[in-house]
Amino acid sequence: MNCELISVGTEILLGDILNTNARFLSKELAALGISLMYQTTVGDNEERLKAALDTAFTRADTVILTGGLGPTPDDLTKEVCADYFGKKLIMREDILEEIRSYFLSKGLTMPESNGKQAMVPEDSTVLPNKNGTAPGFIMQQNERKIIILPGPPREMEPMFTEQVVPYLRKFSQAVIKSHTVRTFGIGESAMSERVADLLENANPTVAPYAKDGEALLRITAKAESEEAADELISPLLEDIKARLGCCVYGIDAQSIEEATVSLMKERGVTVAFAESCTAGLCAKRITDISGASEVFHCGVVSYSNEIKSKILGVASEDLDRFGAVSDIVAAQMALGVKSLSGADYGVAVTGMAGPTSDDPEKEVGLIYIAVTDGESLYLKEFHGRKSGSCRDYNRFVAASNAINQLRLCIIKSPQLRSEGNIKEFINSYPRN
Amino acid sequence: MNCELISVGTEILLGDILNTNARFLSKELAALGISLMYQTTVGDNEERLKAALDTAFTRADTVILTGGLGPTPDDLTKEVCADYFGKKLIMREDILEEIRSYFLSKGLTMPESNGKQAMVPEDSTVLPNKNGTAPGFIMQQNERKIIILPGPPREMEPMFTEQVVPYLRKFSQAVIKSHTVRTFGIGESAMSERVADLLENANPTVAPYAKDGEALLRITAKAESEEAADELISPLLEDIKARLGCCVYGIDAQSIEEATVSLMKERGVTVAFAESCTAGLCAKRITDISGASEVFHCGVVSYSNEIKSKILGVASEDLDRFGAVSDIVAAQMALGVKSLSGADYGVAVTGMAGPTSDDPEKEVGLIYIAVTDGESLYLKEFHGRKSGSCRDYNRFVAASNAINQLRLCIIKSPQLRSEGNIKEFINSYPRN
Repeated sequence: MNCELISVGTEILLGDILNTNARFLSKELAALGISLMYQTTVGDNEERLKAALDTAFTRADTVILTGGLGPTPDDLTKEVCADYFGKKLIMREDILEEIRSYFLSKGLTMPESNGKQAMVPEDSTVLPNKNGTAPGFIMQQNERKIIILPGPPREMEPMFTEQVVPYLRKFSQAVIKSHTVRTFGIGESAMSERVADLLENANPTVAPYAKDGEALLRITAKAESEEAADELISPLLEDIKARLGCCVYGIDAQSIEEATVSLMKERGVTVAFAESCTAGLCAKRITDISGASEVFHCGVVSYSNEIKSKILGVASEDLDRFGAVSDIVAAQMALGVKSLSGADYGVAVTGMAGPTSDDPEKEVGLIYIAVTDGESLYLKEFHGRKSGSCRDYNRFVAASNAINQLRLCIIKSPQLRSEGNIKEFINSYPRN
Repeated sequence: MNCELISVGTEILLGDILNTNARFLSKELAALGISLMYQTTVGDNEERLKAALDTAFTRADTVILTGGLGPTPDDLTKEVCADYFGKKLIMREDILEEIRSYFLSKGLTMPESNGKQAMVPEDSTVLPNKNGTAPGFIMQQNERKIIILPGPPREMEPMFTEQVVPYLRKFSQAVIKSHTVRTFGIGESAMSERVADLLENANPTVAPYAKDGEALLRITAKAESEEAADELISPLLEDIKARLGCCVYGIDAQSIEEATVSLMKERGVTVAFAESCTAGLCAKRITDISGASEVFHCGVVSYSNEIKSKILGVASEDLDRFGAVSDIVAAQMALGVKSLSGADYGVAVTGMAGPTSDDPEKEVGLIYIAVTDGESLYLKEFHGRKSGSCRDYNRFVAASNAINQLRLCIIKSPQLRSEGNIKEFINSYPRN
């Protein structure tokens, strides 16, 4: 089976809404092992929709359309598709009743216009919509299939999973299974070089890509069952993990914060953050993960120098002398928040997010991260973007690096260099 | 000019990433008055990408491609497009140098593979990439134009806005200008009713929509110049502002936080946040705005009860008795962070973000917000989502409400009801 997606809706062409349906359906088709070569978006326009169907059927035998099933006159997906297969639309009283009772269940009476949604292409399979008023349809003509689904994701997604997947499964020979190796602290090209030979593989394939400042490797196997696919993948996974070492933070992990929170739960350790330039982003990302309260109790957003001294006990002489963006201030912030919170680890971030720098000696993008377990200090200095839309990027990457530094510290990574005892570091810091 | 978009990337066809580029570019093209009839997505595959170009040029004179400019062998957008116009790729030493220094600026040496990104289609206009290593290109052949942009939004968006928009503007006849009225605290339908008559307008059009729990009104005028468009829009804007009152927080404002930060700068006031369920999201969103340091010095993420008492001075009897999610705790958090920070306003958020509730008497989605100027207390209780993917939504909407409550407090909105003096509220709270 060769499938193609057509998203129908002028609001998508105008950029008013994000096309999440295309992503959802693509993921589902991949999981079914059904190949999808093209996605197309077209407006609510009879002629252009027909043209899109023509093009699609030159390349695919099955076309899935979403959107344009609404009650208004500009919704015409069903009409165009029925006509495309030379079918009439027939009024189905039973469906009209369902739509009426759907409105009644909400204490409303059905507007006249919704009657349109009870019109059904002849010889089609109707897909009831339990989350809305527009049913979906499956139409078949020889080898060619048209599957029509409503546009709103909360109506389309369950309809697809519960009614279309069982239908499609009959046509899918193979299963395509993917696993993603997520890394941190290595660039896409450097990572690709370490696994260069594997990128030649036919099945499973190994494909590198970059996302939000991280490098990822996707391993995709085609087989007749999920199990068989996993058997193809697992030896490759082990090989890749061995080659990339500590840079690998998770397989199919959602994010560095998710991987780190589950690592902390596993080890039963807690963390507290002192954030300057990231200003709450570390805490926000850690607590995006449900159940983070087990490992995170407290964060201090010390945006001003006064607060760094007052709440975290950073020496104001050091702030005056070395500036808020310095290793010595990062170290004191980390120790300060660890003591204040009683957490096992204190993590501090201070840097110049940009777009401008308020310290002539510090350039935009300069960021210091300090992690301490109360004994040792682990420092990281790095450079984000100097210009452009750098602020969001620098803050995001600073938070990612802080969370990753914590992860490396917990797993006692050989990558980490300790600065020795944190109190000694602070006391014996060269101040003259 | 008739434009078409081609998004290149197998990761999009597999549903691994959401195609936000198509939305961004569609919005931008609409604003330029350039018609876009189709969007297509195709994988990193020479033959199919060529076929997509063929199809596109039967319907459009200008094709914009995003993605496939990376350093790896499967990135071939530039190669296919050059070949499509019968052009060779030439190595540009100057660009190679820029890429090298980009890596150097990060303390890295350029991997060999990135050299590929210095190859340029002959006779093309090169679009420098200040946020990455892959430059973009504009190629023209008779009436046909190909515009190639990198895939990562952080690189593509500024490149498009700063370098491609000025180029495209030359080809667009009419100007389509939009202004967006952003509101908070009023639903889409309630807002629509207040402006029902205006929704009939032909030019400018007035269109309501909902986004991230806010109701927006987009006013769009078509005219021969920006100025002429603005003349059509401004009287309508005034009318709408008058009808919606305090609910309007900004015209073309990016967000409630942007509007609130500029309001605070204007008034010269400062704020501190005490966050429980939002856990840093308020601080993060306020400091997303460049220059926020003028108005924001300090935030405390008091995720655990211990920290609420220890740092913010919330009475532990009240925590035990009324629970962390209660108006009395919110009030003490707000007062606590105001005193601790010395800011003009203290804002506190505590609630049940979900997915589960750890207090049988409090349902998921229950959120309390407290704002104080040290004298009066302004409380808000509201209910977010009870189930489904509620966590992110509840946290986001809780932060939005906290920031809006602060805004209403600063402008002394008649909408706000004061609970009277905050210390009296806390002392005389019914405890038996």
